[in-house]
Amino acid sequence: MSLHPKIEADTLPVCTTEFSHVRLMNDSRWPWFILVPKQADVEELHDLTHTQRAGFMADVNQVSRVVHVTTRCQSVNVAMLGNVVPQLHCHVVARDPGDANWPAPIWGFETVLPYGETPDSVQNLITCVEKSFF
Amino acid sequence: MSLHPKIEADTLPVCTTEFSHVRLMNDSRWPWFILVPKQADVEELHDLTHTQRAGFMADVNQVSRVVHVTTRCQSVNVAMLGNVVPQLHCHVVARDPGDANWPAPIWGFETVLPYGETPDSVQNLITCVEKSFF
Repeated sequence: MSLHPKIEADTLPVCTTEFSHVRLMNDSRWPWFILVPKQADVEELHDLTHTQRAGFMADVNQVSRVVHVTTRCQSVNVAMLGNVVPQLHCHVVARDPGDANWPAPIWGFETVLPYGETPDSVQNLITCVEKSFF
Repeated sequence: MSLHPKIEADTLPVCTTEFSHVRLMNDSRWPWFILVPKQADVEELHDLTHTQRAGFMADVNQVSRVVHVTTRCQSVNVAMLGNVVPQLHCHVVARDPGDANWPAPIWGFETVLPYGETPDSVQNLITCVEKSFF
């Protein structure tokens, strides 16, 4: 299956699991992962079969846990919206009081701030996510 | 377990399943359900046990499907944020081009517009959600 061009353009690859492609949003304002199930042409969570959904949500849950433990953020936003990009994808985002738009949503907020060199803390987080799967 | 006072105040009860409390957000701008897992003191999806999470997500998935099929909306927003209310809860919202804030997020957008009398279409949707569980 192929990624929607906007997901391809806005994110960096992290790893691929049995059920999902895990990617990092190229926006340094928040530690922000995107998971895309491997199945093509899926727009809603309920379009997945039971097994696909269980696998995909287990991956989402795992990234959420690793993000929470590693960043020690106050809350993790886990969201499947699909208003802009119809291909099913799940956002997993570390949120903290004082972040760029706390406590309001991150989507559509001001201008993306792409990573230059990835900071050590983010590189460490990517490694932790990746290692958790293998 | 008890509901966070803000969830209690902002939503109307729909039904209770084996795993979740299903409620309707009292905001007529969108067909908008809230699911709260029955376990007390849970803030993140990954704080649930495997069984609790599978049950809760099956409920979320079912509400998402019923909302999609019944409203024929373009997309269903499924989101667990927790920036304002820490108690774990999942939003399931029908979204359509032309709705109050399409395609931007609904959270924190302008002022809540509570239902007066519930319109037939929403009453029908509530009934469909409820019936899907029993």
